[in-house]
Amino acid sequence: MNDGSTNLHAVILAGGSGTRFWPASRTDRPKQLLPLAQGRTLLEATIDRVRGLVREDRVWVVTNPAQLANLRACIPEFPANRILVEPEPRDTAACVALAIAHLEAADPGAVIAVLPADHVIEPAERFRELLDRGAQLAREGRMLVTFGIRPTRPATSFGYIEPGDLLRGGTGARSVVRFREKPDLETARQYVASGRFLWNSGIFVWTAASLLDAMAVGNAELEQRARDMMDAVRRGDRPTADAIFRRMPKTSIDYAVMERAPRVAVLEADVAWSDLGSFLALGSVVTPDPEGNVCVLAGGAGATLVGSENCIVYAEGPRTVALLGTHDLVCVLVHDAVLVCPRDRADDLKRLVQKLREQKRDDLL
Amino acid sequence: MNDGSTNLHAVILAGGSGTRFWPASRTDRPKQLLPLAQGRTLLEATIDRVRGLVREDRVWVVTNPAQLANLRACIPEFPANRILVEPEPRDTAACVALAIAHLEAADPGAVIAVLPADHVIEPAERFRELLDRGAQLAREGRMLVTFGIRPTRPATSFGYIEPGDLLRGGTGARSVVRFREKPDLETARQYVASGRFLWNSGIFVWTAASLLDAMAVGNAELEQRARDMMDAVRRGDRPTADAIFRRMPKTSIDYAVMERAPRVAVLEADVAWSDLGSFLALGSVVTPDPEGNVCVLAGGAGATLVGSENCIVYAEGPRTVALLGTHDLVCVLVHDAVLVCPRDRADDLKRLVQKLREQKRDDLL
Repeated sequence: MNDGSTNLHAVILAGGSGTRFWPASRTDRPKQLLPLAQGRTLLEATIDRVRGLVREDRVWVVTNPAQLANLRACIPEFPANRILVEPEPRDTAACVALAIAHLEAADPGAVIAVLPADHVIEPAERFRELLDRGAQLAREGRMLVTFGIRPTRPATSFGYIEPGDLLRGGTGARSVVRFREKPDLETARQYVASGRFLWNSGIFVWTAASLLDAMAVGNAELEQRARDMMDAVRRGDRPTADAIFRRMPKTSIDYAVMERAPRVAVLEADVAWSDLGSFLALGSVVTPDPEGNVCVLAGGAGATLVGSENCIVYAEGPRTVALLGTHDLVCVLVHDAVLVCPRDRADDLKRLVQKLREQKRDDLL
Repeated sequence: MNDGSTNLHAVILAGGSGTRFWPASRTDRPKQLLPLAQGRTLLEATIDRVRGLVREDRVWVVTNPAQLANLRACIPEFPANRILVEPEPRDTAACVALAIAHLEAADPGAVIAVLPADHVIEPAERFRELLDRGAQLAREGRMLVTFGIRPTRPATSFGYIEPGDLLRGGTGARSVVRFREKPDLETARQYVASGRFLWNSGIFVWTAASLLDAMAVGNAELEQRARDMMDAVRRGDRPTADAIFRRMPKTSIDYAVMERAPRVAVLEADVAWSDLGSFLALGSVVTPDPEGNVCVLAGGAGATLVGSENCIVYAEGPRTVALLGTHDLVCVLVHDAVLVCPRDRADDLKRLVQKLREQKRDDLL
């Protein structure tokens, strides 16, 4: 481990939102701010995960105005000057451009790891080894480094990466034949059956220079605005930087850059990984009881289960979930709401949230 | 209607406890203090039900020390001197003896209607007519008057009454051939099939004199202590009255008196009646939605149901129950707990409460 010896920075993307953990997650309190990681939030777990590899003053967090207050409450000791706030949601390309502008101003030539704040990755030590290798590739090989996860099922919610030949240098990284957008189920099955594809984890390592080069190939407008923003940030001209951000192309870093970039490497990350796509995934962070029930309890919450099997319980605060004779249910209890649905309907949560929107229950969203 | 013309008093027995509405009901907040009657508590509904027949200053409530604070919060304008507090739980015979002691002291020769606080009865006007006829029988015929409900199912949780011949006087009352304890299911089926039996509603009308006569026949010790208590209350000697109460036989008024009394009449009450034995009974107080869902919401609670059928929802306070794709579930949400169980397991709630007791979760009981 090279603590501080490489100029590696970690940018944690914490501005994402979603409804798949409703009613626990809200507009101002997304999944990454929920205590889903053994009593810690996913954001805290992500910060802890790079400790020892990335120097403490080289960790950055990106969020948005709606979530800022809850994020700061979650990591009260984290310095405000390393919390970057997107003026508005503009997808990942703009978000990454904002981050490299600030990092280049603070530490020119930095190697930058981009990490989503809402993933579970174990063991952390193995992950740091991989990230360290990625940093070496990014710095010395001037590659855009991605991390691929060996698929365990034909997921349609992830992009896939088709790795090519092993690169020289003994890092274990491979070239990338191509990126694949989120496939349909049939295609996903073929990918998994072939054994040739990896999930795109959304974790990247690069330098600003390499990234800008790749932007120039993939999306010239994006590159130009990113450079303009770097100038504005370097000058300390916040209003101009914000204005540029708001004119950034609204696109993902995968689509705008990675899929078209010439110098991309993929490291297969042999770690247990989950993006916690729904409550069903809690089974991967907590050991089920002998009846197959998974209980994630935070803030003094309790669960009393009688004659119940294969249920998933999430509860916060001094509240108790009591299940009697239930099976294959999801039950989520927070201060102002409870959700109950069968496990096999958890993916339909969007429909429920849509209904709440129609009912003008913005207080619950 | 003879508002005030008969000296009819109503004694509302509000000290009962139970676990069948847990987590809404608690030791200090039993079913009768829950807002189950169109936003009112069952206790308030019971008080309202006799209004117009019983003069307001002739309504009494009996409770116990554990529930007193919540009861007073529920009916804050009800005069404290007509709230009688049992020194300890001692079954219905002792409770009735306490009530007649106070009523006789306040209004000698009173006709006394005894009404459980946790029943739903509609329409109230018809019920008052029946109660008025019962009062006439109690006063003029010196009968112990009971009210029978035509069974709609072979319930094993009620006692049954076998009516005999019509009594003279045109009240529609009949003599009672016999009382039957809670039967087993087979016997209950025979009772219902025969068409000869009525449920014992637990509603009675009598005078103190008639009741004491019947006590003398059924349980001489009970009669003696009831008379001693009347003396103590008349003298205003509260400590002695309390001490006598604590030595009362612990028995039910049905068993100790009604089943053995010579002068008992039964009036068939042609009203919609429910003792709300469990959450399943909420279907009798609220009209189900087109999908068969029954929602009882109090204190600003909400319910958002998507693709859900035949569910029963009870919620209190500014909280929302969200059901997605569920069917035949009971979901009960209060400030510190949620219960989820299939409809056909609602009768097993005792098992769950027992487990909470084992877990020393007295805070939830």
